[in-house]
Amino acid sequence: MQKIINDPVYGFITISHPLIFDIIAHRYFQRLRRIHQMALAYLVYPGAVHTRLHHALGAYHLMTIALEELKNKGVDITPDEVVAAQAAILLHDVGHGPFSHALEGQLINGMSHEQMSLMMMQQMNQEMDGKLSLAIKIFSNQYEKKFLHQMVSGQIDVDRMDYLNRDSFFTGVSEGVIGYHRILKMLTVHNGTLMIEEKGIYSIEKFLVSRRQMYWQVYLHKTVVSAEVMLVNILKRVRVLNQQHVTGLHTGGVLDYFLFEQQTSTKGEKLVELFYLLDDNDCLFAIKQWARHKDEVLQQLCNRLLNRVLLKIKLQATPFAPSVITEKRLEAQQTLHLGEKEAEYFVFTGVSDNTMYKMNDNNINILFKDGSVRDIAGIDNPLIHQTISATIKKYYLCSLS
Amino acid sequence: MQKIINDPVYGFITISHPLIFDIIAHRYFQRLRRIHQMALAYLVYPGAVHTRLHHALGAYHLMTIALEELKNKGVDITPDEVVAAQAAILLHDVGHGPFSHALEGQLINGMSHEQMSLMMMQQMNQEMDGKLSLAIKIFSNQYEKKFLHQMVSGQIDVDRMDYLNRDSFFTGVSEGVIGYHRILKMLTVHNGTLMIEEKGIYSIEKFLVSRRQMYWQVYLHKTVVSAEVMLVNILKRVRVLNQQHVTGLHTGGVLDYFLFEQQTSTKGEKLVELFYLLDDNDCLFAIKQWARHKDEVLQQLCNRLLNRVLLKIKLQATPFAPSVITEKRLEAQQTLHLGEKEAEYFVFTGVSDNTMYKMNDNNINILFKDGSVRDIAGIDNPLIHQTISATIKKYYLCSLS
Amino acid sequence: MQKIINDPVYGFITISHPLIFDIIAHRYFQRLRRIHQMALAYLVYPGAVHTRLHHALGAYHLMTIALEELKNKGVDITPDEVVAAQAAILLHDVGHGPFSHALEGQLINGMSHEQMSLMMMQQMNQEMDGKLSLAIKIFSNQYEKKFLHQMVSGQIDVDRMDYLNRDSFFTGVSEGVIGYHRILKMLTVHNGTLMIEEKGIYSIEKFLVSRRQMYWQVYLHKTVVSAEVMLVNILKRVRVLNQQHVTGLHTGGVLDYFLFEQQTSTKGEKLVELFYLLDDNDCLFAIKQWARHKDEVLQQLCNRLLNRVLLKIKLQATPFAPSVITEKRLEAQQTLHLGEKEAEYFVFTGVSDNTMYKMNDNNINILFKDGSVRDIAGIDNPLIHQTISATIKKYYLCSLS
Amino acid sequence: MQKIINDPVYGFITISHPLIFDIIAHRYFQRLRRIHQMALAYLVYPGAVHTRLHHALGAYHLMTIALEELKNKGVDITPDEVVAAQAAILLHDVGHGPFSHALEGQLINGMSHEQMSLMMMQQMNQEMDGKLSLAIKIFSNQYEKKFLHQMVSGQIDVDRMDYLNRDSFFTGVSEGVIGYHRILKMLTVHNGTLMIEEKGIYSIEKFLVSRRQMYWQVYLHKTVVSAEVMLVNILKRVRVLNQQHVTGLHTGGVLDYFLFEQQTSTKGEKLVELFYLLDDNDCLFAIKQWARHKDEVLQQLCNRLLNRVLLKIKLQATPFAPSVITEKRLEAQQTLHLGEKEAEYFVFTGVSDNTMYKMNDNNINILFKDGSVRDIAGIDNPLIHQTISATIKKYYLCSLS
Repeated sequence: MQKIINDPVYGFITISHPLIFDIIAHRYFQRLRRIHQMALAYLVYPGAVHTRLHHALGAYHLMTIALEELKNKGVDITPDEVVAAQAAILLHDVGHGPFSHALEGQLINGMSHEQMSLMMMQQMNQEMDGKLSLAIKIFSNQYEKKFLHQMVSGQIDVDRMDYLNRDSFFTGVSEGVIGYHRILKMLTVHNGTLMIEEKGIYSIEKFLVSRRQMYWQVYLHKTVVSAEVMLVNILKRVRVLNQQHVTGLHTGGVLDYFLFEQQTSTKGEKLVELFYLLDDNDCLFAIKQWARHKDEVLQQLCNRLLNRVLLKIKLQATPFAPSVITEKRLEAQQTLHLGEKEAEYFVFTGVSDNTMYKMNDNNINILFKDGSVRDIAGIDNPLIHQTISATIKKYYLCSLS
Repeated sequence: MQKIINDPVYGFITISHPLIFDIIAHRYFQRLRRIHQMALAYLVYPGAVHTRLHHALGAYHLMTIALEELKNKGVDITPDEVVAAQAAILLHDVGHGPFSHALEGQLINGMSHEQMSLMMMQQMNQEMDGKLSLAIKIFSNQYEKKFLHQMVSGQIDVDRMDYLNRDSFFTGVSEGVIGYHRILKMLTVHNGTLMIEEKGIYSIEKFLVSRRQMYWQVYLHKTVVSAEVMLVNILKRVRVLNQQHVTGLHTGGVLDYFLFEQQTSTKGEKLVELFYLLDDNDCLFAIKQWARHKDEVLQQLCNRLLNRVLLKIKLQATPFAPSVITEKRLEAQQTLHLGEKEAEYFVFTGVSDNTMYKMNDNNINILFKDGSVRDIAGIDNPLIHQTISATIKKYYLCSLS
Repeated sequence: MQKIINDPVYGFITISHPLIFDIIAHRYFQRLRRIHQMALAYLVYPGAVHTRLHHALGAYHLMTIALEELKNKGVDITPDEVVAAQAAILLHDVGHGPFSHALEGQLINGMSHEQMSLMMMQQMNQEMDGKLSLAIKIFSNQYEKKFLHQMVSGQIDVDRMDYLNRDSFFTGVSEGVIGYHRILKMLTVHNGTLMIEEKGIYSIEKFLVSRRQMYWQVYLHKTVVSAEVMLVNILKRVRVLNQQHVTGLHTGGVLDYFLFEQQTSTKGEKLVELFYLLDDNDCLFAIKQWARHKDEVLQQLCNRLLNRVLLKIKLQATPFAPSVITEKRLEAQQTLHLGEKEAEYFVFTGVSDNTMYKMNDNNINILFKDGSVRDIAGIDNPLIHQTISATIKKYYLCSLS
Repeated sequence: MQKIINDPVYGFITISHPLIFDIIAHRYFQRLRRIHQMALAYLVYPGAVHTRLHHALGAYHLMTIALEELKNKGVDITPDEVVAAQAAILLHDVGHGPFSHALEGQLINGMSHEQMSLMMMQQMNQEMDGKLSLAIKIFSNQYEKKFLHQMVSGQIDVDRMDYLNRDSFFTGVSEGVIGYHRILKMLTVHNGTLMIEEKGIYSIEKFLVSRRQMYWQVYLHKTVVSAEVMLVNILKRVRVLNQQHVTGLHTGGVLDYFLFEQQTSTKGEKLVELFYLLDDNDCLFAIKQWARHKDEVLQQLCNRLLNRVLLKIKLQATPFAPSVITEKRLEAQQTLHLGEKEAEYFVFTGVSDNTMYKMNDNNINILFKDGSVRDIAGIDNPLIHQTISATIKKYYLCSLS
């Protein structure tokens, strides 16, 4: 049996293996419908309301094409490995919490979303009688065919290919569109490692430039940054108030647990089941409740986020002078009749950064026709050469005006 | 000053008038971010998660183009009328409740979303010192230039043009894409009425066929129908349980008011302010809470909707025989250990219908080169002629298997 | 080895079998680069300059996908049959002469382009040691698996699917875009015949409506008809003048042979080799030469076509009255100082017709889930039912004004 | 009156001024239909068969949008200047000869296509009673508002914007797609000069990278280079044979004049009228004739080009060693039984180069929010900084194997 899913980005996504059906039908996977892929970017790009579930399906689709291409080139990949790699990519982000990266580290103490993904996969694996064992091996890079893991997580993995494309598509920022089809056709495996054929260099160039552009135009767009830090500040404020035994903060939902209780005591299956109940809706519901809370700071932040009255934000290449920050805070204290500490929720500084290409173990390697292999950063190419791996930092200052 | 909004469907949407800025910045308008344009269609089409706010902006964009085209053809439209028509279309759907059409009539007693839109516009008009008066006249068809209202609401209004295009775009159902640009270029005004130029007949044909296809492939897709009736059944069950004084149904949010209180006592501004707080999140949060409720029916329905374990649905051209329904209900009683009444939440029948073109006052009129005017249903065209205005009915039966 | 061809319509077209390489590299196939797919439609749609070669590659691509889909559904298709069907579709139009349909029957006496395609395939088969024998069988419907021929030539063959899509793409007429991907996924084989699965009905509906729209908006666009009849008239005039022993008509190229010599004496290989040399360039070169010829009629027609000063054309549902034609001819005689006979080159009438769906052996059959089969014209569907197979006729009158 | 032209790239192109109608209807402009925009690139990218006429219309469309944007920003542009700038861009390439850049300098002695464009515009201006005078001033940079010329010809002119987009579209090379809409919205005029607003930096970055990619992937694609040098060699060979009084070289068309006669004696109007008759068809017709010529070199080159049996080509970063060239030539002499001189037609070397951004008077200037202006090459941007203006050279060697 075969199932076809309409996808505006790729046309159709085809599902044919029973295990893939079961994963998609699983409540942990379905939960991803309730998590925005791009957190609060929709406050700037109204189309960017797509979900983590959609991204997972898209990455699965690219994985399917990529594996097919590699098999056509003679790379040895068994049917079991195909399904395992598909399962691994479907579940690679299953552990993302509400608003994905925007709240990473805010709700689940000391646990990255990758670790949570792994816990959820292990839980699912139990329910599915071990059918996910190979997928988990690939996901956690324990499998001997390293290229399978590189396709799930690396500098040119299908995860990135899908999110760049999908995020471009839904934001309408055409600068981010990548020629994913061509890149997939240029993939190859050499010495057990994923590589790009020589004639794919321009596509990789384009991929890196697109990624860079998406970072600055979208992911680190100053208004998006402002909104997402406001969201973080809301949770901070709630926790501070709770420590001061202020009432009216509980929502009745599972968010209460993640905000106010000791998570260290909960483990494994129980934590995962609580986490399964947690999604963007809990936060939005809470923000609407808190928008009517008596605490002025909390109420203000919530109403502002709800009604898109965001803090003003300025960017510059160097850190902001303490005097500038102080001045803005004094201004906020006066305007909103706040204490010094409270003003910090409305006036704060931070830094965004992005590196076009990271020099590390997961290099993008080019396989030349003569059989030689070179890192893309090392090839004789004035666009990529030298500049490619520099990290760009932008300092920001949020304030009322 | 000018603001540009990225829109994946049209590229860029330009805002230039201060009143339009103010409308978009208003909390009532921003609330539309929290209402899915296509209710639960995303359970079938994962990309269909766009919001009412996005649709309103898109319709505004088409209105802007349409007015420009008409002005270029010499139709007399003043600058004030332009802004008023833009405002009217921006706000035409502001009164939609959670999950739009899927819950129409379920939460707000005896009030259509158009009536609520009008109430909200009036409230905003007060806050804006009467600047929306002309927009309200156009919206409620009280303005002498009837064609302005027809552009907001009629058989070829910019509302439909945007939603067909946008819904096609986000679902990925290419059959629904319409050549909106061409239709807009074919608009004209004759005797004060909106018309289509003769050479636009094929575009209108395409428009009607696309609309028809979107109805059957998307809006009335059987799985979508199943999910949306399940959602209605959840609310029904909650209300029944509440009447039986069952506890654990209140969510703490504004939904409690709309579910359990007498709305007739609340009027005007106060109702509108409560309504402003109500959106999709309240329903989803409630469903997650109720998924752990002790009532078996409620808990089952909520978990099924949450995890996409939808009821099976069958379609046919004639009503289902009572014996078939009875049999399915018995089956459900046994499987789920339910009483007769309870089984009705899982086994039920209904009817979907669609008319490609409605014969009424809002006809699509074609202006021929010789100056004559004919209704599109009356022209000598084998595709549209006769068949176009027939209503198609499909009966459905939902059940466990 | 694999070759990838960039195609703006489908992204990439992949070639992998040596026989397919050889066909594409063959001079007969390469000649298709020099024949416009849509004859003179580019005079109305400037983008419509794509070639027969491009269409052939596109149809090959769709064939490849279609065969893959059918194999996935368990239809028995051998590797040899795959390559043969691919070869057949690549070559199905190889016998088209200059300006394809516009000059069909004008240059090659009593031979359709299909017959010429067959002759050329046979010639190629000799050069290729019989490797095209199976392809020829499929092409000429001599092969037992009838569905393979139906995919090459039928009412929903990949030929039509490609040209509708490609012609929509290059003209920019979005009304003609079809959801080819979905149609291909709906194909199935039942009782040895190509069919459409039940859930594909809407896609077929859309396909038929798109086809109808492309006919009226593009293929039979009145300005295109005017230009193409002018082209036919140029050749007619040249032949008449040649019979009158007027000089200055020969171009020095192979067109002279097809215009002025007895083709009946040339057969087989020799004819094919002459035909291989004939393409759009010969006609355009000739028209530029004749634009300076002393014959007023010929010179006028050629200059008009060259500089896009086309005859005016009117359409109506009934034949034009002889009196109207006579009047227009008198007018032309006076304006251009022509005799009665000469005026007929500038004033003439004719008829265009189109049938949305032809009732014949190549029906579009729908395979219902219950195993029953019905012709699409017979299903209970108000859009297609009855009206679908009516032929629409439009009479035209070309004249100077 | 208004005319709408369908364009697959931009949707619709609207013509509304009588002068623009007259220019488009002029035989010089219509001639552009018979010149491929991308010369022989269609031998690699089968979709790239679009014409110079289509490009001119596209650039006109972008000019129209750009002027509108600038006027909305308060830049003083009169209605006459609008039409003149539109006329200038429509005609900027009217002087291109057969196969555009591929034969630049080969057929018209000592005259660039820009000079020929100017001559043709002057000739048209006479026929049109001086209505093109302002357009000619803008085209030849004699007009005081320099920014109008910069929009016609500069580093971010609408010419480049259209050809990058259009060539990407028709080749299907998505890497070349630029966000033209955004760039147009970022244009501004400061101190009489065309500039880009600060927030448009990323779009310009993307534009430069896309341009670079189109050069290497398409315009200077090695197979395209091979084909185009073969075309040049054909003409060289014909001229050499003609000097040796070899017969059978004349085609009967206007190409004979440009190949064999002294052009210096012909001037102005007469030359322009001969040039008007010359287009791609003359060359293709000639090549088909010469493919049957008795000279082995000429015949081989022509047949190879016709049937796409192109010379093999190798690229490298440094010049090829003379010994390598000699060896290949000896090989060619033996294989084809040629003399030393003749072998040079089949074995030759050359260089392709491209500069991403040229440091000259036509800089791309960025206007910062604080009112300062900086050249894009000077801004603190690791992607563009330093590397941007380096010229990349690739040496090629064509040979038989």
